[in-house]
Amino acid sequence: MIRTLPLALLALLAVLALAALLALAAPALAADPAPAPSEIVAAAPKADWMAIPASDLLVMDLAPDVKGKPRRVVIQLMSPPFSQGWIGNIRKLAAAHWWDGLSINRVQDNYVAQWGDADGEDKAKAKALPVGLAVVPASEYIHFANDMSDMALPRLAQPFDVRVLPDPYAGYGFVHFESGWPTGRNSAGEVWPVHCYGMVGVGRNLSPDTGSGAELYTVIGHAPRHLDRNIALVGRVIEGIEHLSSLPRGTGALGFYETPGERTKILSIRLGTEVAALPAYEYLATESETFARYADARANRRDPFFIKPAGGADICNIPVPVRRAK
Amino acid sequence: MIRTLPLALLALLAVLALAALLALAAPALAADPAPAPSEIVAAAPKADWMAIPASDLLVMDLAPDVKGKPRRVVIQLMSPPFSQGWIGNIRKLAAAHWWDGLSINRVQDNYVAQWGDADGEDKAKAKALPVGLAVVPASEYIHFANDMSDMALPRLAQPFDVRVLPDPYAGYGFVHFESGWPTGRNSAGEVWPVHCYGMVGVGRNLSPDTGSGAELYTVIGHAPRHLDRNIALVGRVIEGIEHLSSLPRGTGALGFYETPGERTKILSIRLGTEVAALPAYEYLATESETFARYADARANRRDPFFIKPAGGADICNIPVPVRRAK
Repeated sequence: MIRTLPLALLALLAVLALAALLALAAPALAADPAPAPSEIVAAAPKADWMAIPASDLLVMDLAPDVKGKPRRVVIQLMSPPFSQGWIGNIRKLAAAHWWDGLSINRVQDNYVAQWGDADGEDKAKAKALPVGLAVVPASEYIHFANDMSDMALPRLAQPFDVRVLPDPYAGYGFVHFESGWPTGRNSAGEVWPVHCYGMVGVGRNLSPDTGSGAELYTVIGHAPRHLDRNIALVGRVIEGIEHLSSLPRGTGALGFYETPGERTKILSIRLGTEVAALPAYEYLATESETFARYADARANRRDPFFIKPAGGADICNIPVPVRRAK
Repeated sequence: MIRTLPLALLALLAVLALAALLALAAPALAADPAPAPSEIVAAAPKADWMAIPASDLLVMDLAPDVKGKPRRVVIQLMSPPFSQGWIGNIRKLAAAHWWDGLSINRVQDNYVAQWGDADGEDKAKAKALPVGLAVVPASEYIHFANDMSDMALPRLAQPFDVRVLPDPYAGYGFVHFESGWPTGRNSAGEVWPVHCYGMVGVGRNLSPDTGSGAELYTVIGHAPRHLDRNIALVGRVIEGIEHLSSLPRGTGALGFYETPGERTKILSIRLGTEVAALPAYEYLATESETFARYADARANRRDPFFIKPAGGADICNIPVPVRRAK
């Protein structure tokens, strides 16, 4: 990694030089009133919205809050090519109703909320896992792209091009989205999902353990991207993350709760196909021109509140829009 | 901004090419057991810790939580050269005990918690501000550095150099820290504080309004760096941010609470010099070699949990260590 840095830098220079020339040749920015990113998304044609199958949803119902209000968290599991072995395990765990009665055991500020078996580390007390869970190798943290020329984001007819934004976590690669997911991509053709706010991953112990999928966490703070390629990501929270992010922080090491009474009980976790009256959800296709214009607007806010467009953005500050289908 | 991109890119190419050559010439990485970032910080010599004067602290006491536990939030106000006009206003507001009895009025998930006068927009009901508050121009969002050669972070005797990490929010500038603060820095010599988790800023209405400092917010999610150079930053929460980040999210537009009963009451906000028995705080000097090694370790986790060092980091994933003085 360290020793290949100079070559990666030189590759970056070539791409950036090309981008600079393209930008020089591009037409000047139009002076029309600029829409906010949310307005661009709201105006997207129906064809740009991709349905999320109910079979890719994981629905977690927590015990009601102190006022008796229900707390539901909806998670979208990764689709191919990112649906690696852990996803199969999670489907088995949900089908077995394995998480029912377990709890949120860890909430570390600016980091993660984590759930599963609070006694999982104690062999005498641990809840038995369903049979047939796969042991997934660490090689599945990374996906190899077939087509290195595919930058996924469409090119826009304006000078600013989000596709040339450097990603410091990708060996001097660039911002990249694929199949609706924010991903890292480097010059070796490796592609991997990244730890943005709301992403869901698989807790593990020291490598070579990669975790079964029984212990899950979601990011509730600034993107901890040092975890990319070190832990399995399996999805993202698309609704109800506030029921996790606003929980009291644990006061033990790593944000674990020190007493059982502090934990939040999980009533049930089900695949979407098992949940009655679940709304339909859809995401904005990351290969659409609407998404490219949205990403451009996130990197260059030109709507009235802003006086200085940034001229750039990091991938986790360009969240993929997800909504209930209309 | 857009039109200057190609020149900035070309400048970046030159610096990166130099960095690549330096990296080629550097010695190989030692094979010693690698300490975690926290271990590097814990081993820092006393001289690397900078005392934070009590006069730079702002102490916010919220009403106790449902279990009667006190909730104190400690904020470090910016020191020169970043202590712009808003800081003087905030000192006057604190000295006048102006915030006492007001409230946290807005908590928007993955964005900000904001406090001040809930009736501030209603002239008939708004609480009168102290006399003599400055009207601060937007030019104070940015500081001009005198010495362009000062990269602030020391160079390390190893190949990886955090100082060449690109910052997509700085016109293709680089990661930069100055006087204990994370900052953006571009090729024009402009330096500005950046919106990382926990940073505190000044709410405002549409420009040219820059806000007085009476309405404040803190970041409780992924760094919203599109706000850099668009809103004044005045400090950071150094203790007790969980009392803001774990509050229930507001269900109104922009996360404002819809009813007064949802707001959290502010008992008092005081300058540190007015607070009895306040602990002493200190931060790790960002110009120290310890900080450079810490930043390197944040960008290249080599401690046992990690199997793939990232080879990079964004500035907000390198939080400046702050602690109670020993």
